[in-house]
Amino acid sequence: MTTLGGSVATPAKGLTAQVLVVHSFDDLQAHAAEANGRIVLFDKAFDQDLANNGQAMSAYEQAVAYRVKGASAAARLGAVASLIRSVGGADFRLPHTGVMHYADDAPKIPTAALSAEDAMMVGRLAAQGPVQMHLTLTPQTLPDADSHNVLADLPGREKPDEVVLVSGHLDSWDLAQGAIDDGAGVTAAMGAVQVLKSLGLQARRTIRVVAWMNEENGSGGSKAYFAANKDKLSSQIAVIESDSGAGKPLGLVASVTPDSEDKLAPITTALQPIGATAIDRREGEVGADISPLQEAGVPGFAPLVDTREYFFYHHTAADTLDKVKPDYLRRQVAVMAVLAYYLAEMPEPLPRVPAKAK
Amino acid sequence: MTTLGGSVATPAKGLTAQVLVVHSFDDLQAHAAEANGRIVLFDKAFDQDLANNGQAMSAYEQAVAYRVKGASAAARLGAVASLIRSVGGADFRLPHTGVMHYADDAPKIPTAALSAEDAMMVGRLAAQGPVQMHLTLTPQTLPDADSHNVLADLPGREKPDEVVLVSGHLDSWDLAQGAIDDGAGVTAAMGAVQVLKSLGLQARRTIRVVAWMNEENGSGGSKAYFAANKDKLSSQIAVIESDSGAGKPLGLVASVTPDSEDKLAPITTALQPIGATAIDRREGEVGADISPLQEAGVPGFAPLVDTREYFFYHHTAADTLDKVKPDYLRRQVAVMAVLAYYLAEMPEPLPRVPAKAK
Repeated sequence: MTTLGGSVATPAKGLTAQVLVVHSFDDLQAHAAEANGRIVLFDKAFDQDLANNGQAMSAYEQAVAYRVKGASAAARLGAVASLIRSVGGADFRLPHTGVMHYADDAPKIPTAALSAEDAMMVGRLAAQGPVQMHLTLTPQTLPDADSHNVLADLPGREKPDEVVLVSGHLDSWDLAQGAIDDGAGVTAAMGAVQVLKSLGLQARRTIRVVAWMNEENGSGGSKAYFAANKDKLSSQIAVIESDSGAGKPLGLVASVTPDSEDKLAPITTALQPIGATAIDRREGEVGADISPLQEAGVPGFAPLVDTREYFFYHHTAADTLDKVKPDYLRRQVAVMAVLAYYLAEMPEPLPRVPAKAK
Repeated sequence: MTTLGGSVATPAKGLTAQVLVVHSFDDLQAHAAEANGRIVLFDKAFDQDLANNGQAMSAYEQAVAYRVKGASAAARLGAVASLIRSVGGADFRLPHTGVMHYADDAPKIPTAALSAEDAMMVGRLAAQGPVQMHLTLTPQTLPDADSHNVLADLPGREKPDEVVLVSGHLDSWDLAQGAIDDGAGVTAAMGAVQVLKSLGLQARRTIRVVAWMNEENGSGGSKAYFAANKDKLSSQIAVIESDSGAGKPLGLVASVTPDSEDKLAPITTALQPIGATAIDRREGEVGADISPLQEAGVPGFAPLVDTREYFFYHHTAADTLDKVKPDYLRRQVAVMAVLAYYLAEMPEPLPRVPAKAK
């Protein structure tokens, strides 16, 4: 009855133990004396109401902490395995996967994700009496192999050495096609440059399409790009990444200095025909792969898209091509094209973003 | 990548063949010459727009024909196996199961259901060139075993030999818990009598709770009940079955004579506080298990519930307890209780329903 999957980092062949169901890290600490020898299940529900209010990433952050840190938190108390309730707002019995981390100070215990329904069922059963689970988890962590970012430059007409990145990531979890995470983002980045080419628009600076490798499991691609460019960071004028799916575009996310916002007005004017006029100015990371460059002060951007349903599909077997609506993807191409062209064409680059306002 | 499941009636161990994708029976006939030696995939989408307009059963009937009759239609043209696109309106890569029939005039070929996403993917690939599929299907059809309907009577105070049935079905497909199909129906039927008992209401006639066995795969339970009562059908005053899930109750479905409708007005008056006042008068079957009695002229009823999401979960691994909203289930208990009590209390039974108006 229990569908296991995802987040598996250490194999467990035939591990049987009683389950301790907790709903938070605090709840785990309150039951610390009961964790030894148990399988700890973190039954933390994804807050879809938060997602429905445009705060999907906050909802994700709340819940994903248990996937990332749950195993080590449980292991420190003697647990023999840990489980999470899958991180997502849909109720179709889909387990979810994603990265997790073992802390150095805790045994590396097996960990996996249950579908929300199965986590709820185990919770109901455990409220009635002891529940034993038998885990058979068969993960393999293969040796790293060489892989590559994919780059393409549309050279600038005046300042070809200054570049604006427009990007998405090439890798995905292997439960499905990775259509919304992040096929849509890569396609939008490629489409933006295709549109500019077909319009014969060559901006002042170079527009560089980047399809990042290894966003999901270590960010090797973005680290390698940063390392290769760390001595010429002043050439990196602005960075754009699309990695929030293929929902309807609403505008753009900008991690820029407060006084930069007014300078973005022509972008929203250009995007008025598709209604994508919102500017959501944020501090800090707006895309995992562009975050090393953002941390170095480069202004960062992303399309602002409707993410209310993003975590219905994210990191599940249902992240398939049919989830990408062609009209929304075309609109996202428009957002990325306008944004990239404008940033590459501005006479003066936007100011760098001080570290504290990241 | 392809998730197989459901509808499997004949094993296939390592069957490999090229796929012929068709979208209807007519389409199959148009490609009749290509079916020989192939795996035929019926890629027929469930019409969720129809379901969203309150016609979920029509949407189901359109699509389920391929599950029921597709294998024999394909086999008659020499196909070696048949596949369907799962019958349902959700897009969460869930295969769907359910009954299928082999016709006597066709070879019994293996058949299974793909998730909608996988059917679409095979369709896209086949549009580009030949697609081979390798099927490993491992169904088992075990010998029939004894099982039972579960009956309980709340005896009538004046006419205990006349009965009104209030019912749901006990069996379900084993992908999940069968919470909406049909745990909710059985619970609503039991709850109706529980409410009447706790209110101290004993109707003129007997109210009989029936939890039918084997609705999903042969209707053995309802056939057995009919056989046991066929010599005293006049004792069967009215029959109610809940088998459309746990959505919000909107009123009732009634297969009664046209002049009976006015007599049902007190029911809707009683249900006004919960807004379940619609009367949807239909001809013909309103519940699979009560259909033999309906065919014999017994007035048939069902709660009218919101079925817009019923086929998101029906016959899938996601038909789990969390899909049942307690408030809606309580309302359904109210509908069933009012309906059963009123029909059992009426001084004169409703008239029998002529066969042509079934």
